[in-house]
Amino acid sequence: MTHKTLSQELLSKLEQYLSEINFGESPKELYEPLTYILSLSGKRIRPILSLLSYGMYQKDVESIMPQAAAIEVFHNFTLMHDDIMDEAPIRRGKPTVHEKWNANTGILSGDVMLVRAYDLLLHTPADKLHTVIKDFNRTAAEVCEGQQFDMNFESLSSVKESDYINMIRLKTAVLLGFALQLGATLAGASKADIDKLYDFGVNIGVGFQLKDDLLDVFADQSKFGKQVGGDIISNKKTFLLIKALELAKGEEATKLKSWITKESFDKEEKVASVTGIYNSLGIKELTEAKMNGYFELAFEGLASISFQNKEFYQELKALAEMLVHREK
Amino acid sequence: MTHKTLSQELLSKLEQYLSEINFGESPKELYEPLTYILSLSGKRIRPILSLLSYGMYQKDVESIMPQAAAIEVFHNFTLMHDDIMDEAPIRRGKPTVHEKWNANTGILSGDVMLVRAYDLLLHTPADKLHTVIKDFNRTAAEVCEGQQFDMNFESLSSVKESDYINMIRLKTAVLLGFALQLGATLAGASKADIDKLYDFGVNIGVGFQLKDDLLDVFADQSKFGKQVGGDIISNKKTFLLIKALELAKGEEATKLKSWITKESFDKEEKVASVTGIYNSLGIKELTEAKMNGYFELAFEGLASISFQNKEFYQELKALAEMLVHREK
Repeated sequence: MTHKTLSQELLSKLEQYLSEINFGESPKELYEPLTYILSLSGKRIRPILSLLSYGMYQKDVESIMPQAAAIEVFHNFTLMHDDIMDEAPIRRGKPTVHEKWNANTGILSGDVMLVRAYDLLLHTPADKLHTVIKDFNRTAAEVCEGQQFDMNFESLSSVKESDYINMIRLKTAVLLGFALQLGATLAGASKADIDKLYDFGVNIGVGFQLKDDLLDVFADQSKFGKQVGGDIISNKKTFLLIKALELAKGEEATKLKSWITKESFDKEEKVASVTGIYNSLGIKELTEAKMNGYFELAFEGLASISFQNKEFYQELKALAEMLVHREK
Repeated sequence: MTHKTLSQELLSKLEQYLSEINFGESPKELYEPLTYILSLSGKRIRPILSLLSYGMYQKDVESIMPQAAAIEVFHNFTLMHDDIMDEAPIRRGKPTVHEKWNANTGILSGDVMLVRAYDLLLHTPADKLHTVIKDFNRTAAEVCEGQQFDMNFESLSSVKESDYINMIRLKTAVLLGFALQLGATLAGASKADIDKLYDFGVNIGVGFQLKDDLLDVFADQSKFGKQVGGDIISNKKTFLLIKALELAKGEEATKLKSWITKESFDKEEKVASVTGIYNSLGIKELTEAKMNGYFELAFEGLASISFQNKEFYQELKALAEMLVHREK
């Protein structure tokens, strides 16, 4: 017999809600990709965060299912467009939208998906609608800014640590912050608690991205979902590479730069060699320290938040801790 | 000495407002294309329609400048993304965004431009915000549907007249309808008048697109801004070609189809020959009759609308008539 946690129960209801949204019928070329990308599942972290933060202050959690779904729809819109820009062929083991259809379909279906996210936000009562759309707009623009910075970094030979942190804050962390802010705003929480929940989301978000960077190099291959070392192979400017480029001197610097510029190489050899450089520079420990700093900041802030329903507060904390300790 | 018409005065104020919008500073790669595409001017028909319809019922026309600007920003977002999908190198005599920068910039700057359109709509009072965003969302989704139908038609050997009319209604006409609906809604006009203004916009919009199709073949080259016959050269499925494919029989049908499939040809010869087929089938007259039907419907509806300020009503009528009779 399995006992569902609160998050799992909310997830079931959210999946049900998502599967019943009618985005539009015709033309099918426009609307099928929306259902398709949403069906590739994913963890639905963002909408669950909204539901949990709402539940900390109000009982009728299901009443904000449309707004929680809006965040997931928006998130998948960004994935659809990012996959075109990054020329990514695979998402969650399936062909990306522009691969399965074409780039034009990916652009246009993404556009209408963003409009549909706003449609779902319209379920907000009139007295809160302005605030919700304003916060959503700020977040959406920041996510675009983050993606543009990320693309800019690709062609730079060096990126400052602070610029990298700012990029991941914009590209991924602010949406987690907004998810929590949205739930608390809809629940009528105090300004102080709304702000603290937002900051909690942003801080765990930055930490999670640093964790992603770490796992890509140092994960246990038997537990990790994809090829360990993928970021090294593609020269992705992660926190690890940025720190290594900053700290490497002499021969080690030459060796690292030669791996980055080499056009043809043995993948395993490159991963082993660059990981060796990371190890000799203590990059893992430096990244862990940075990441843990964000996690500590996050949980310190969380501890000072007022709430009505302890069950939801504890579930939020447990979910975040689970993500902090994940191995894939 | 020149005397400015009401529309010209409103246009000056709108241009001023548009030029002062701060879309965002950083990263500049993200925000520069917004200012760039908006600076390529265009006639600003849509926001002027909003200002005129508002002015029919209220005095403080400038109070809705942000919402009028939102429509122009949205319209330019659709141009930015459509130009990528259509691989168009030139817009209003200047390089398109994806040509001047690249496709990824066009996608992402377009995305943030859509978000900024919603930002401008947030200047709407709380009691009308839900209606305005709902109407805008419906329109935005319809414009995407129209673009998808248009792309679908490219690969079809025949398109039904009714499907073509539906496509141009969605792709271009509903935004004119929404522009008028928005102004009247913000002004607190009656539901009946709002609906009639919307219908007026949609009907003139369908008529204008048929006019575009006609001018592309039958314009006076000395007055027309671009090469007459461009649609014939590119086999664009206009109302004219759709009707010709429907009506041509025997040798004429064979000749028309052979021009469409020919990969290499003399452009002038193709334009002259296809125009000849159109003439022998009476396509010009058929298209004019269809177009005039929409214009008549539009002006009949307009005549039945109630208003407070006659000056604005007359200016709206005059602007529409000017567009009906334009030669380029």
